[in-house]
Amino acid sequence: MPNPNEAQAVGPAFDALLEDVQRLNDLGKAAAVIGWDREVNMPPGGVQARIQQMTTLSRLIYEMGTSDEMGERLERAEAEQQGADPESFVGALLHVLRRDFDDARMLSSDFVTRRSQISGQAHQAWTKAREENDFEAFQPHLEKVVELGRELAGLYGYEDTPYDALVNRYERGITTAEVARLFEDARAIIVPLREAIESSGVEIDDSILHREYDVAAQERYVRTLAEAVGYDLNRGHIGTAVHPFATSFAQGDCRITTRYYPRHINAALFGTMHECGHAMYEMGTDPAFARTPLARGASSGIHESQSRMIENAVGRSLPFWQAHYPGLQNAFPSALSDVPVSDFHAAINKVQASPIRVEADELTYNLHIILRFELEQALISGDLAVADLPTAWNDQMQALLGITPESDTVGVLQDIHWTGPSFGYFPTYALGNLYAAQLMEAAVEQAPQVASDLDRGSTEALLVWLRDNVHRHGRVLLPAEICRRATGRALDVGAFDRYVNDKFATLYGLTRAGGAAQV
Amino acid sequence: MPNPNEAQAVGPAFDALLEDVQRLNDLGKAAAVIGWDREVNMPPGGVQARIQQMTTLSRLIYEMGTSDEMGERLERAEAEQQGADPESFVGALLHVLRRDFDDARMLSSDFVTRRSQISGQAHQAWTKAREENDFEAFQPHLEKVVELGRELAGLYGYEDTPYDALVNRYERGITTAEVARLFEDARAIIVPLREAIESSGVEIDDSILHREYDVAAQERYVRTLAEAVGYDLNRGHIGTAVHPFATSFAQGDCRITTRYYPRHINAALFGTMHECGHAMYEMGTDPAFARTPLARGASSGIHESQSRMIENAVGRSLPFWQAHYPGLQNAFPSALSDVPVSDFHAAINKVQASPIRVEADELTYNLHIILRFELEQALISGDLAVADLPTAWNDQMQALLGITPESDTVGVLQDIHWTGPSFGYFPTYALGNLYAAQLMEAAVEQAPQVASDLDRGSTEALLVWLRDNVHRHGRVLLPAEICRRATGRALDVGAFDRYVNDKFATLYGLTRAGGAAQV
Repeated sequence: MPNPNEAQAVGPAFDALLEDVQRLNDLGKAAAVIGWDREVNMPPGGVQARIQQMTTLSRLIYEMGTSDEMGERLERAEAEQQGADPESFVGALLHVLRRDFDDARMLSSDFVTRRSQISGQAHQAWTKAREENDFEAFQPHLEKVVELGRELAGLYGYEDTPYDALVNRYERGITTAEVARLFEDARAIIVPLREAIESSGVEIDDSILHREYDVAAQERYVRTLAEAVGYDLNRGHIGTAVHPFATSFAQGDCRITTRYYPRHINAALFGTMHECGHAMYEMGTDPAFARTPLARGASSGIHESQSRMIENAVGRSLPFWQAHYPGLQNAFPSALSDVPVSDFHAAINKVQASPIRVEADELTYNLHIILRFELEQALISGDLAVADLPTAWNDQMQALLGITPESDTVGVLQDIHWTGPSFGYFPTYALGNLYAAQLMEAAVEQAPQVASDLDRGSTEALLVWLRDNVHRHGRVLLPAEICRRATGRALDVGAFDRYVNDKFATLYGLTRAGGAAQV
Repeated sequence: MPNPNEAQAVGPAFDALLEDVQRLNDLGKAAAVIGWDREVNMPPGGVQARIQQMTTLSRLIYEMGTSDEMGERLERAEAEQQGADPESFVGALLHVLRRDFDDARMLSSDFVTRRSQISGQAHQAWTKAREENDFEAFQPHLEKVVELGRELAGLYGYEDTPYDALVNRYERGITTAEVARLFEDARAIIVPLREAIESSGVEIDDSILHREYDVAAQERYVRTLAEAVGYDLNRGHIGTAVHPFATSFAQGDCRITTRYYPRHINAALFGTMHECGHAMYEMGTDPAFARTPLARGASSGIHESQSRMIENAVGRSLPFWQAHYPGLQNAFPSALSDVPVSDFHAAINKVQASPIRVEADELTYNLHIILRFELEQALISGDLAVADLPTAWNDQMQALLGITPESDTVGVLQDIHWTGPSFGYFPTYALGNLYAAQLMEAAVEQAPQVASDLDRGSTEALLVWLRDNVHRHGRVLLPAEICRRATGRALDVGAFDRYVNDKFATLYGLTRAGGAAQV
């Protein structure tokens, strides 16, 4: 695909539009930089002014992006480029611009203002409620947020159920029914496997992960680790943030943040690899997409598949650590010199039901998502009143994970997500895990080098395959289409089933039937 | 002064203007953040996109700031607020906005484009010419830059000499003749003092500054040092940059950058204190000026006075290090545990002619500026052809400092400043030193606590005095007015004379006549 940023003109109407789009993209990326800076560098004294700077910039971007002039320019370009191949740069860009423009125009400025006010207040109330384990203080705010969610669904429109409109904001083209089917299948795999693990009698000791890990040594080591999974530091940067995230300012500047605990190495290791997966996705979009909204991920689910694949399928695998464990031991000799790699590998894969989503293991994590998916639907449909949410939460937690949170703070109040109407986002976390398994299986099948590289701790061939089959497409293809072309079929739980059962059967000495095997 | 950002309305026309101004300020600060990020965090791969982001944002800011609508809004506000006290928030803001607006409108968009192109090419050529010690390769570019300087002077207008217009861009209200008089007086103080030092026979050994200083320990120590000079880390941040600078995004977010050499501690110590001085100035502007162009420094010279005062008058003084030297020794025990504070103090104040401005000592630094001031005037007037500049440079260097650079790389090609038409900026460095001495003397005279605090290594009372007499005014007062009100007289070299003669007489055992005293 030629790079139209440098190539000759496409047509006067398209070219004029493209220039606007590029500038709008520049402003959006400037906003991303100052947002990143807020999380990574900004001193406490800067917060008020930064909110104003971000508000001014977002407002300007919103006004420019949804202006009548932009709409007319888009129409003229569409008319000029009618019949453009929808998978060409021109066709795909026009399609995505139209989609984004229509989506943005669907929201009245009144709605946007109310959303921002209600979410701001809900965020404040949630922070306090979580601290004080006081769900009732958050309840009236959550009621308003749920109402906003319903309103949002109404504005976007839906055929079957309001939740369809919400989940589509993050996973374009999927329906609630499809998600429900996938999650049912996944649940039928995870719950018995978790029970088999529990009754296997195998006890993994993961206390080595809580030894002393010098923070300065962690800061040095994550650079090595990021490069080990294929992250290019010449096009990246590793900052520190309380809530780690990845963000990109250009294909040549895709940053990650991570965090360091002096007595828990997991965040630095797996958080870093996770964010690297996100960042490498955006690094790998077609260079021709620079300065346009095509240079992003296809959906939240596909994005999450890239981070999970690096974090789990690569980063919690035995071959990866067989290659890289000596480096880790060198970095933390007092913590790890007496620990064989097999013990380390077992510790980082220990399955143990936890009430906290972000502390969950690779397997039970998905149950946390299934729980939220079901509760979100019930909230939006009105089948569940907000007042009854804590009880429903705890009941579900017992049913799915066999535990009851000891307080709402570590239960229904644990996540920030419901301080705004981002219902429909949670499911993409588990969809990401399913995509990750299916994509990894396809990569290994299609490119023999992938497995042999992974066996020696290298992601090189995997990244080549991912760039070709996932990354380069950016937002040109819908998530389902990426999945179908890359793996030959729609998303299902088959690969996930094989992946988790193989992995945990080995680790816990199980037979596929669920019982403990001879170890 | 009440805070109009939070107070009731001033008048419909002024309020409308203020809202525009605040938004424009937000965008300007966003541009500052992404510029800062480029120097401090951005990976190499981000450079192309960042240039585009900065170009888009600057262009938008320029267009909004110089639009006819902005001009009309300003006129309406001026009409509405006629007779506003010029030192009130409203009067001062209207005055500064008018000045900035007229200045910006004086430059045609054609000129701005040419300036950016010529400067860009000159910067590239200079980088290469300096590397290769090849002035002739830079010469045609510098000729164009000088031509731009003359054009700029013509656009801004002047009464006496074109250089007046240029120096006024950085030091509003000063004339070339005044600068020349001050510099003549300063030269008459510095040259004989330097000669007396040279013939004193006193040899200071500063090799201790070139011992091994662990970079991680430097990074930790500069935080202590910054706080020791009064920099508030809750409203600041210390980054690392190849060319250190200070920048502010709000009064609560004034950042500095510094750099670290493993075998030279000076940059980390004095560079940090220097930038802290700049940052504390902007931290100290009246909070009511938030989000307006009043919340900046009065001029480059006054700004430099704040950095020099902290770097030199405080940071190279014996009392400061008597208080803080044990901490420095603790940070670098292997380098400094055997060095008494008196030796350290002598080393950091060693006077030695160097061909390089940025490596010059506190005294001879000013001669580097005087040289540039004279050459700049001659270039702009046409008395000196660019082709003859290297010879003129070396002749002047010999006359002023008694040395000849061994190459143009460490001579006429050393500074980045002449890659753009920023003629008139260099003088403000030495004006800053003169202001610093005069302000410090006034502070000590007017507030006895200043001296007693400094004697115990604290800038507390000094900062109170500076905030009241300098910082809080922002851009409300012209530099000459700040000086007159704070010190009771116009800028002269008297305080500087007393400061350098006292300091170096003690250090080098001189009598005021210039000969060596008994030591």
